[in-house]
Amino acid sequence: MSIGFINGKYVALDEKAVPIEERGHQFGDGVYEVIRYYNGEGFMLEEHLERLEKSAEAIRIDLEGGIDSIRTIIEEGVKKAAIPDCSVYLQITRGAAERNHLFPKDVPPSVSMTIKPMAPFSKEMLNNGVSVITHPDERWANCYIKSLNLLPNILAKQAAAEKHAYEAILYKDGKVTECSSSTIFIVLNDTVITTPLSKQILPGITRMAVKEICEKAAIRFEEREYTTEELFSADEVFLTSTTSEVLPVTHIDDRKVAEGTPGNLTTLLMELFKAKTGQ
Amino acid sequence: MSIGFINGKYVALDEKAVPIEERGHQFGDGVYEVIRYYNGEGFMLEEHLERLEKSAEAIRIDLEGGIDSIRTIIEEGVKKAAIPDCSVYLQITRGAAERNHLFPKDVPPSVSMTIKPMAPFSKEMLNNGVSVITHPDERWANCYIKSLNLLPNILAKQAAAEKHAYEAILYKDGKVTECSSSTIFIVLNDTVITTPLSKQILPGITRMAVKEICEKAAIRFEEREYTTEELFSADEVFLTSTTSEVLPVTHIDDRKVAEGTPGNLTTLLMELFKAKTGQ
Repeated sequence: MSIGFINGKYVALDEKAVPIEERGHQFGDGVYEVIRYYNGEGFMLEEHLERLEKSAEAIRIDLEGGIDSIRTIIEEGVKKAAIPDCSVYLQITRGAAERNHLFPKDVPPSVSMTIKPMAPFSKEMLNNGVSVITHPDERWANCYIKSLNLLPNILAKQAAAEKHAYEAILYKDGKVTECSSSTIFIVLNDTVITTPLSKQILPGITRMAVKEICEKAAIRFEEREYTTEELFSADEVFLTSTTSEVLPVTHIDDRKVAEGTPGNLTTLLMELFKAKTGQ
Repeated sequence: MSIGFINGKYVALDEKAVPIEERGHQFGDGVYEVIRYYNGEGFMLEEHLERLEKSAEAIRIDLEGGIDSIRTIIEEGVKKAAIPDCSVYLQITRGAAERNHLFPKDVPPSVSMTIKPMAPFSKEMLNNGVSVITHPDERWANCYIKSLNLLPNILAKQAAAEKHAYEAILYKDGKVTECSSSTIFIVLNDTVITTPLSKQILPGITRMAVKEICEKAAIRFEEREYTTEELFSADEVFLTSTTSEVLPVTHIDDRKVAEGTPGNLTTLLMELFKAKTGQ
């Protein structure tokens, strides 16, 4: 059963739960995580919690009880929801206060969460790969923070959908950064390449998992900037995210990636990732 | 009496009114306006409504009933609140829907509003001027949209407050853009100068009023880009916003603007603006 939670109480997903003057609602003043549970186990839960802690610190939201209190909220929620394969969405905002840009004084942060069954990702998309578009990266300078300011991501992903594509590959100054809600990798000369971590991109948890898998399997892995020209000349392209796992890209802006079918290294990484999640 | 409003209902400001899965709350997926009423009259109400309509169009929120429906909500709310000098905050989000970056289908936008008495702006700050800081403009590429993605603005204004300053002047590539929640003007050689409208800055309503006032009063007015060096060498500096009206700046990063007192043209514009509002 899907459940909602906010500040110590379980609520229905459509229940009124937040006042108008909440800093999530009026400013997007908060941070979040999406965590995948496989067979009752939170996949890379500690890495998600660590990133959440860093995001909160970066925008200076103080968590009373620290990140341990969040782990407890998630674990109790998952137990209550009793869905072995679920998706946990958890956000922390700077709380409810009279509207003012400045941080409110003596106002506790607000923690809300939803837990839902995880619908299996489209087999067709996993098997056949997806089409994507390229799109300018119009986001702010601190995308390493997983914040609620997601309007540019929404507009980019919507632009993709309207071209019958799954995702938007973002580029800035001719270089690929990431996608609207995924990390992107290319394969060139049997080397898996992805943009290095910086303030401009989110340190993806599935990105981290793929890096570990490549190291263990002795697959060449390189973190470096690359251009949109290199993207179009890649032998393989794939995306990663908590929701889509490892997902082959076969078309970019209606141009085929190599032969227009999922690549060999991509297929191998999909299998190795599946194994890592215990599937 | 302060009042809240959401989707056809009046609510208390601290009342739970919004579900967790509302796109304002989870994505900052919305736009807003703040409108000042002077003695029962909405100051430049039509200009605010027009800008709101443009913001909504830019992020493709469709208003059923168009902007006229919003005017009616505001006018009825102000009548009910019965506060002749009030501040109306109104936001429109893409509504409540299961969390997904893509625009939800067949979901109506959500309109919320607060109306509060307008506390007179600090006389001391108006008479003596304010201190401000300079701060990198880290915002996204489409700041002409008055969106709820306000995290960079919050962080810049908080950085100012922690240096005992009122505002943060934002700069990008060595050029001044605007402030975290104000427009900025400099005076050089008896000419009032402000950054030209572009996708990078908000078309301020008070900015528009000051431009009109300058034209009527035959004060030289120029819209052009200027550098932070020009800012520091200005004869006068002032800010405008719906809340602060015309506000002199006397110190920037602890350096005096000219003699460190409000300038003559600034003082004149403060008076002319006051007259325009009927005060």
